[in-house]
Amino acid sequence: MSSIYSGAVLRLSVFGQSHAEAVGMTLEGLPAGLSVDLDALQGFLNRRAPGRNNWSTPRKEEDRPEFLCGLKDGKTCGAPLTAIIRNRNTRSGDYEQLRHIPRPGHADYAARLRYGDAWDGAGGGHFSGRLTAPLCIAGGILLQMLEAKGIRADARIRSVAGIEDASPFTESVARKEFPTVSDEAGDEMKKAIAAARAEGDSVGGVIECVITGVPGGLGGPMFDGVENRISQLAFAIPAVKGVEFGSGFQAAEMRGSQNNDAFAVEDGRLVTETNHAGGILGGITTGMPVVFRVAVKPTPSIAQPQKSVNLKTLQPETLCITGRHDPCIVPRAVPVVEAVAALAIADLVLEG
Amino acid sequence: MSSIYSGAVLRLSVFGQSHAEAVGMTLEGLPAGLSVDLDALQGFLNRRAPGRNNWSTPRKEEDRPEFLCGLKDGKTCGAPLTAIIRNRNTRSGDYEQLRHIPRPGHADYAARLRYGDAWDGAGGGHFSGRLTAPLCIAGGILLQMLEAKGIRADARIRSVAGIEDASPFTESVARKEFPTVSDEAGDEMKKAIAAARAEGDSVGGVIECVITGVPGGLGGPMFDGVENRISQLAFAIPAVKGVEFGSGFQAAEMRGSQNNDAFAVEDGRLVTETNHAGGILGGITTGMPVVFRVAVKPTPSIAQPQKSVNLKTLQPETLCITGRHDPCIVPRAVPVVEAVAALAIADLVLEG
Amino acid sequence: MSSIYSGAVLRLSVFGQSHAEAVGMTLEGLPAGLSVDLDALQGFLNRRAPGRNNWSTPRKEEDRPEFLCGLKDGKTCGAPLTAIIRNRNTRSGDYEQLRHIPRPGHADYAARLRYGDAWDGAGGGHFSGRLTAPLCIAGGILLQMLEAKGIRADARIRSVAGIEDASPFTESVARKEFPTVSDEAGDEMKKAIAAARAEGDSVGGVIECVITGVPGGLGGPMFDGVENRISQLAFAIPAVKGVEFGSGFQAAEMRGSQNNDAFAVEDGRLVTETNHAGGILGGITTGMPVVFRVAVKPTPSIAQPQKSVNLKTLQPETLCITGRHDPCIVPRAVPVVEAVAALAIADLVLEG
Amino acid sequence: MSSIYSGAVLRLSVFGQSHAEAVGMTLEGLPAGLSVDLDALQGFLNRRAPGRNNWSTPRKEEDRPEFLCGLKDGKTCGAPLTAIIRNRNTRSGDYEQLRHIPRPGHADYAARLRYGDAWDGAGGGHFSGRLTAPLCIAGGILLQMLEAKGIRADARIRSVAGIEDASPFTESVARKEFPTVSDEAGDEMKKAIAAARAEGDSVGGVIECVITGVPGGLGGPMFDGVENRISQLAFAIPAVKGVEFGSGFQAAEMRGSQNNDAFAVEDGRLVTETNHAGGILGGITTGMPVVFRVAVKPTPSIAQPQKSVNLKTLQPETLCITGRHDPCIVPRAVPVVEAVAALAIADLVLEG
Repeated sequence: MSSIYSGAVLRLSVFGQSHAEAVGMTLEGLPAGLSVDLDALQGFLNRRAPGRNNWSTPRKEEDRPEFLCGLKDGKTCGAPLTAIIRNRNTRSGDYEQLRHIPRPGHADYAARLRYGDAWDGAGGGHFSGRLTAPLCIAGGILLQMLEAKGIRADARIRSVAGIEDASPFTESVARKEFPTVSDEAGDEMKKAIAAARAEGDSVGGVIECVITGVPGGLGGPMFDGVENRISQLAFAIPAVKGVEFGSGFQAAEMRGSQNNDAFAVEDGRLVTETNHAGGILGGITTGMPVVFRVAVKPTPSIAQPQKSVNLKTLQPETLCITGRHDPCIVPRAVPVVEAVAALAIADLVLEG
Repeated sequence: MSSIYSGAVLRLSVFGQSHAEAVGMTLEGLPAGLSVDLDALQGFLNRRAPGRNNWSTPRKEEDRPEFLCGLKDGKTCGAPLTAIIRNRNTRSGDYEQLRHIPRPGHADYAARLRYGDAWDGAGGGHFSGRLTAPLCIAGGILLQMLEAKGIRADARIRSVAGIEDASPFTESVARKEFPTVSDEAGDEMKKAIAAARAEGDSVGGVIECVITGVPGGLGGPMFDGVENRISQLAFAIPAVKGVEFGSGFQAAEMRGSQNNDAFAVEDGRLVTETNHAGGILGGITTGMPVVFRVAVKPTPSIAQPQKSVNLKTLQPETLCITGRHDPCIVPRAVPVVEAVAALAIADLVLEG
Repeated sequence: MSSIYSGAVLRLSVFGQSHAEAVGMTLEGLPAGLSVDLDALQGFLNRRAPGRNNWSTPRKEEDRPEFLCGLKDGKTCGAPLTAIIRNRNTRSGDYEQLRHIPRPGHADYAARLRYGDAWDGAGGGHFSGRLTAPLCIAGGILLQMLEAKGIRADARIRSVAGIEDASPFTESVARKEFPTVSDEAGDEMKKAIAAARAEGDSVGGVIECVITGVPGGLGGPMFDGVENRISQLAFAIPAVKGVEFGSGFQAAEMRGSQNNDAFAVEDGRLVTETNHAGGILGGITTGMPVVFRVAVKPTPSIAQPQKSVNLKTLQPETLCITGRHDPCIVPRAVPVVEAVAALAIADLVLEG
Repeated sequence: MSSIYSGAVLRLSVFGQSHAEAVGMTLEGLPAGLSVDLDALQGFLNRRAPGRNNWSTPRKEEDRPEFLCGLKDGKTCGAPLTAIIRNRNTRSGDYEQLRHIPRPGHADYAARLRYGDAWDGAGGGHFSGRLTAPLCIAGGILLQMLEAKGIRADARIRSVAGIEDASPFTESVARKEFPTVSDEAGDEMKKAIAAARAEGDSVGGVIECVITGVPGGLGGPMFDGVENRISQLAFAIPAVKGVEFGSGFQAAEMRGSQNNDAFAVEDGRLVTETNHAGGILGGITTGMPVVFRVAVKPTPSIAQPQKSVNLKTLQPETLCITGRHDPCIVPRAVPVVEAVAALAIADLVLEG
């Protein structure tokens, strides 16, 4: 088990539980002298923060990181960078009844198998989506580093509840409050979310991330290529159940003559006419945009009664979850996807 | 870049190029005293070997491993286990014309960006599907170890060219020569492969792997859970462009009330009534079968003329590939998927 | 560069700078349900803390850790354990004059080569002995875990300024304020320390650590054996310049017939009559006590004027260091040596 | 347990047993396009090979590596580099009597605790000094890479049986057959070796390695600095029981005013007037030569009768070892020390 990501150059340690004193992260391997724009970082974190609109949980957290070390005069100093976010608005009581009755779709049962009674399950403990806040601290800083090199990672909602935003990707989408390219598609999605909420239910979706400006020649074959790294990181986001690159699962239905990206020269630079490969061949970047999508399952916390079992008595139980929850975490997960993309790509870039 | 997989306990080093002296692997971390049934291993390797039927490349390789060390009297002795397969039937001449004209859909261009002119591109070099042979040596041994513990990993063709085998999974499928549950679906797929071949084209597909007997409580949250590990390994298989667990991308279209797996008790043991989670919650096994699928793109080597560019002159070129190739590598990739599943699960089991 | 230790099971991230907001550590891989006695831990930390007697720096720090996560009701909960110590008593002004004039024997010059002007050198920054405080938080917890398994790591001052404490090791020595077996030898050492201090100078010494109760059969050959791990960790302690096991450098002067430890049976258990091997053969524990010694150089901070160079002008400078410093850090380093021993051995024990 | 070294960039897997089919190594992370001079490599390997003179074992092995992959037209191609050496001259019968009677000073007993009866102990198995041959293949290639960058690692015999070669280091020493600076000291050492051999005994010694041309600013604090890495690697050499840097254990007896290396300017370049630090401060290179010494214990295989215990009966046994052995392995270990130095430094240089 590991909450430390060991990249080629970067290492990220994520710590905390939903209802502990704090969540936080330590990032090391950053070049010394890197300027960190704390306001821009806060803006990035706010995109993930809860309680800002009617499709997310009303639990309000400021998500304001306190930097303990690693920065000096606003710049990285070469030492590990540690930042924490205090947990203020915790209501563990909500979770007391759940101690022996695992919530379907949540980590509760699996975690109890692994850690026994000592497990801290309040608010999901270390498995909580709250842990994506420190992931975003790291990601937000790395996005700034990448941006200075002309590399951007932007994500958008590709679908919610089966409603697709089929419009071609545009960079500006990521800065929208509800980041779909087509506002009509976005409105449909919001309706689907509201309908699920009204029925005490939840919905999932697909997030697409496009990374532009990535130099070709990064990565490698076998176990440590670009897809291996991004997928390993993407599954660190709770609720992600699938990852695909370029045409992904659709490529499996295509002919080679369709799926192969023809080479061409554009402005004196070798490009491919299409990008079914998602910018990656043989685990190595080609210089075309890196494109991947993640499948996000519907939030497991729903208000409807659910069938569970009391772990002590092995008797069936009907479970009603009353805490505060998002009917759809897809919008809040968009910056988290950018964060893991930034982590993977920044590590590849620093590795060279 | 790394051709070494570092699991929690197991480490696998895969080496070789398609047209080098040999391909091979070193596996360490195996418990000492483990019996290795070399005949059973050969049977497993034969499922991957080329040249056995009319949907794979006519290149014939015996794929007979030579064990250099790590075994004593048919048992592991605690030292690293190294086995090699000599490359006998290489025709590098086929690839000479390709030195400066990258094949669309192949690693050629990306590899050249990374390694420069020193890259050994003959037969795809270290990027060749041939490297899955040593992966299968490791996987075949680990499958034997797992079987002794009541754990099985069986894969099947779930779809080829969009033709789906929707029948429920059965363990015996994996031993079929063309491993679909429904023979009718299998026949349709073979027709699609033959049609693609006749047109000098290729097709892809989806492989599904089901791992039964996995104890609950293995894995962990964040970066090193079951999904992170399996996906990192699955992308080591050339041509894989997507991975999903349980309901995967379909879960993104479901409601929470549908996708959550209700808990129940069966024979005094906690189970879930459905398995949309694919046996994994919070990155940890639940004791239900671990289920994942990989998307395999159509073989990039096709006989049709393709558009490429001469890297030296930056002039457009029409490329005709004349070597020996599979019109569909999905059938041969089935045991490779079992091999990476075995590697991930064996490592989790040994980690405990 | 890495301030994360990745053992087989345990991972320790150490962060902070001498004059940053805090120093701290994240430890993961601990079994869930482990009781942590915070009072005993504080007792252990106090052995390292400065300002307690006249052979250490007058800088006073409480070294009272705040646990941010990973503990629940006094027990580990399976999630990463993070604790921080706030830095309160910092006087960065002392270090301003040193910005461009590296202190001989310190990391200043090397760190500046590595990190450039962004380096935070105040108090030695991330290179400060202060970082051994979080190392001791981890070590103190692991010593508790080991003690519950009958394993102890006790260190003593073996020599200071060439004055040796040749008396045979006894466990109780580690709890002395000045941990020598022979009080006479200890008094001589204190005199040598006082003499050095009086002359604005400093002295070094050797610390010996004996670990008893270690099961045989832990570790392995080549790169990851017991000696490899302990030495890798021991050099994490600033000022350590040598490590030896068992008879160490003395073994190099012995004959094989002297140095080989004869096997014998004692109380039905295989032992060796001597322990020149320091409890390790082939990188694996034998069941005999693990014994190692580290050489600690004299504190580089001395009050005497020293020759340095101004890095901006490349002109010679005479440097006078006026901060607060230990004339001999050997006594305070004793628990730190126990801490790294605990980290190495606990990891080996958990690996099994 | 691990026979894989994972550096920042380089990874080295060493495999084989003394009496298996082969020993070998896989090295990855080398830049593509690196020329490998196979004749020079053979010359380096010959320095380690047995049977060349009267102070080493009469077992003759050609130690001629076969390269299986990773080289193309004499240059690295970016793929892992694997080379093997076949074991031809094995006489396992010599070791049959030892199956249940562990040899004092050898890994036998510890290995049996770890691996049980399945352990392959013939010739020491995976613990044999023979495994330093593949280590030297890697080291020899890396020394060539370093030499092209103006970096050299040269080792010499510093002492044997307590007889010291106190003469200042000169680069040319490493190429002598018996590499001492002072031939008189060397002759004394040879006499001591001959005397030990005549008495059926063995002697140890100290090897000193000096690495010149190392750029300053490589490495880092805490767990992954230059000393941590070199020591972790040095203990991979069988029989090494101590490592020290610069003045090492002698520094522990010095005053700070003596041990601190004063900074000065020489030819417009910052240097230190002395090099007690061995070229390393704070785990980072200073640009001065990196100097370390390792203590090599006397060969445990001696002809004299020794006390052991039969592991099956737990009865005392008198053991007489009759195989072929070196009375002193120090001379043959000299290139091995250079090899591990090259591995550590090459990794630091590639990491940058």
